[in-house]
Amino acid sequence: MSDSSPDPKVRADGPLLTRDAGPHRPGPVDGGSWSALHAEGVRPDFLSWFAERTRSTYCRVDRVPLDRLPGWAFDPVTGNLGHESGRFFVIEGLHVQTTYGAVREWHQPIINQPEIGILGMLVKVVDGTPYCLLQAKVEPGNINVMQLSPTVQATRSNYTRVHRGGGTKYLDYFTRPGAGRVLVDVLQSEQGSWFLRKRNRNMVVQVDEDVPAGDYHRWLPLRELLALLRVDGLVNMDTRTVLSCLPSAFYAAAQETEAPSSPAVAAIVRSAAGAPGRHDLVSVLSWFTGAKGRHEMTVRRVPLRGLPDWRHTADGIARDDGRHFSVVGVTVRIDNREVTGWSQPLLYPRHRGVVAFLVKEIDGVAHLLVHARYQAGLLDAMEMGPTVQCIPDNQPGPRPLFLAEVLEAAPERVLYDTVLTEEGGRFYRSENRYLLVDAGDDFPTEVPDEFCWVTVRQLEALLRHGYYLNIEARSLLACLRSLW
Amino acid sequence: MSDSSPDPKVRADGPLLTRDAGPHRPGPVDGGSWSALHAEGVRPDFLSWFAERTRSTYCRVDRVPLDRLPGWAFDPVTGNLGHESGRFFVIEGLHVQTTYGAVREWHQPIINQPEIGILGMLVKVVDGTPYCLLQAKVEPGNINVMQLSPTVQATRSNYTRVHRGGGTKYLDYFTRPGAGRVLVDVLQSEQGSWFLRKRNRNMVVQVDEDVPAGDYHRWLPLRELLALLRVDGLVNMDTRTVLSCLPSAFYAAAQETEAPSSPAVAAIVRSAAGAPGRHDLVSVLSWFTGAKGRHEMTVRRVPLRGLPDWRHTADGIARDDGRHFSVVGVTVRIDNREVTGWSQPLLYPRHRGVVAFLVKEIDGVAHLLVHARYQAGLLDAMEMGPTVQCIPDNQPGPRPLFLAEVLEAAPERVLYDTVLTEEGGRFYRSENRYLLVDAGDDFPTEVPDEFCWVTVRQLEALLRHGYYLNIEARSLLACLRSLW
Repeated sequence: MSDSSPDPKVRADGPLLTRDAGPHRPGPVDGGSWSALHAEGVRPDFLSWFAERTRSTYCRVDRVPLDRLPGWAFDPVTGNLGHESGRFFVIEGLHVQTTYGAVREWHQPIINQPEIGILGMLVKVVDGTPYCLLQAKVEPGNINVMQLSPTVQATRSNYTRVHRGGGTKYLDYFTRPGAGRVLVDVLQSEQGSWFLRKRNRNMVVQVDEDVPAGDYHRWLPLRELLALLRVDGLVNMDTRTVLSCLPSAFYAAAQETEAPSSPAVAAIVRSAAGAPGRHDLVSVLSWFTGAKGRHEMTVRRVPLRGLPDWRHTADGIARDDGRHFSVVGVTVRIDNREVTGWSQPLLYPRHRGVVAFLVKEIDGVAHLLVHARYQAGLLDAMEMGPTVQCIPDNQPGPRPLFLAEVLEAAPERVLYDTVLTEEGGRFYRSENRYLLVDAGDDFPTEVPDEFCWVTVRQLEALLRHGYYLNIEARSLLACLRSLW
Repeated sequence: MSDSSPDPKVRADGPLLTRDAGPHRPGPVDGGSWSALHAEGVRPDFLSWFAERTRSTYCRVDRVPLDRLPGWAFDPVTGNLGHESGRFFVIEGLHVQTTYGAVREWHQPIINQPEIGILGMLVKVVDGTPYCLLQAKVEPGNINVMQLSPTVQATRSNYTRVHRGGGTKYLDYFTRPGAGRVLVDVLQSEQGSWFLRKRNRNMVVQVDEDVPAGDYHRWLPLRELLALLRVDGLVNMDTRTVLSCLPSAFYAAAQETEAPSSPAVAAIVRSAAGAPGRHDLVSVLSWFTGAKGRHEMTVRRVPLRGLPDWRHTADGIARDDGRHFSVVGVTVRIDNREVTGWSQPLLYPRHRGVVAFLVKEIDGVAHLLVHARYQAGLLDAMEMGPTVQCIPDNQPGPRPLFLAEVLEAAPERVLYDTVLTEEGGRFYRSENRYLLVDAGDDFPTEVPDEFCWVTVRQLEALLRHGYYLNIEARSLLACLRSLW
């Protein structure tokens, strides 16, 4: 079955490319928020380069029923969906029981991809100005086809050549000791609701020598990259998580040295500079340790076959009530990456999510309200998430805590508001609206047990280690760096 | 079946109590290394108090076949062994496949205890001298019946009263916010070869007020506690892991201010004081992240029933070849804790293990040789272990790397050598010989990929976070604090 009807989620205007699901050559990047970028210091030559890469990329993604997906098969016993090579990933079932929250038990399909991939960014400082080597990369799930990815984005299957494609460019810088100075090297989780214990190696390596950019790679000043974070759907998830792990010291050279644009931003700058917070780091860690022990979550891998509440249709695997997500199959043709044609399942979230931090100035220092959040697929069941992280249309019960404060904030309180997508190599047309909202002086300092006010510098300290901040929180922290 | 034959592993001399498996009242603590303690500043009143507690404690542990263990039953479908309440823990099967090491695939029973317990120690500083509140505690698996445990040692089942015993003394200090100043609060793993993803909350809380010691509790100067770490089988595993997480600053007041006893100890003191090491912390973290990604380990929970290579006998569940461990049942009567009688399975390691750090002075600073070690039950499959961690009699192939260097070291190179036991609430008569060995100047600085030289202060920084250092490494780090 090829998906020939226009998808209602595709937006016909704005910077996300209009896209039919059939064969197409995406047009040049264009849209409202792009023109504003010139004023923010993004040079026209990047814009024309990216438009040209997009133009010269042929991409076709066709929906295919899962049972006719070349190279993939349902296991005759478990019904799990896997690749014939035994590699890449497997869609299997999960049974979750917990003592926390409104829904205490459920079943769901989940992506099991135990191998560790590399998300690596090369950086270089020229005359005091930091630069990053980005890649214009196509992924089959992207709404807008092409996004800005880190220098290297490779699963272990990729770089050990399971699919027999070409070598991954620049990979040596991240696997060969001494190829550069390692600034960041940490395992971080990915979507805990969709992946089972997935983690990737987030790396930043600084080089001094000249490293030429290939056809689809480009050295971009960090400052321009931060500005591009304010464009809908442009900077991909992998770039955001890698950026989030960079220490403040590296950002300093790229950021505004003049007076911040507003008192709220000034308080964030102080927060990133290490001004003391409401709690010291030992107390923040103690709060988090306590939260992990307060409830229990039991997670059990079960066969995908016969998963309660889910069924196979011509369209994929979906819930009876249409909520949450479905698993769909696609066949892909792309002309500018290692492998030019393949098939795979993708997880298709049915609605747009909201991911937001409330920010509050306490004693002159901005604090972010983090949420100790259970997610069934996380390695230790809990990480710190943003204040709000939900798909409003999926919520069966009352609205999640603080969602109203975020969505109904006065415009002058909204510090950041951009639609970004999640990993297009695993998720089909996933979208989240990322927001940073000034909670204001009247917002209470006392918060429920599972929330805590922390400073930007404290989060930076935690980001040296894995499994503290979930992918959604990390994405937003990268966006926060674009505010000054 | 009651185990009426004397166990060959029980030692008839030395400080570990001679113990028949039948009904008994353990005699007073006595043995060679005790008398030396007076010279090291351990006051006779502690010794007499501990001897008196031991005398006044009645304890009887009887071996019982697993299928006649009161309150426990094999699941009719999976054959897993669990408690009728559904709590405490379950003995189930594990199937492990890995690309690393000599044995690439195996099955084993494993203890699944997903709930988080508390290992909590109250501390207090009086006139500049730090004190710890210890407990003389009996566990059924202890060879010597009574050991020194932290103030509180409670599983979640314990303190939520699943077994309907009395309340846990002092628990409020660790669960009530603001009851004291939290110095340490971190989730740490336990034996990765025997537990599936087990973790406990390691806590140290400092109080200013007077907290009276109950009958089986005692305030002990930290300096005396460190000296007691040199007595075979006295300080239990839970005390050791909690001690290991205490920052150097807290130890400083308890430790020798005079000249260290040897150049090797002087180098360790510098290492703990923060002298720069061979690698900076970013490089150590990068080495560890790289090691995690180099191989894969797939762990799958499987039914205990029909586990390949293992069989049920009258004696418990054991391997056909007698290696590794067996699962045995015991019925317990103890007269001085919350519940005075119960039954449970215990994991019974068949041989004594060796746990050792090689220590080497590099540019005047002591470095410990840590090993990035896979263990199937660990949450992220790998943590840093000591240089050597093995049960020599279990090894089917060649001797583990560096075992010879440890066991054949000249006596003047052996900085620490004490037999300590693992958690007596889960393990039956487990013993490890813990060693700190000066590797000497001739030992190479270049080591295999999965090893790294780190300073004491670097390990202290990692211990603020969970899942970096395994329980064996943490135990040894506590012991290291006893050297000066």
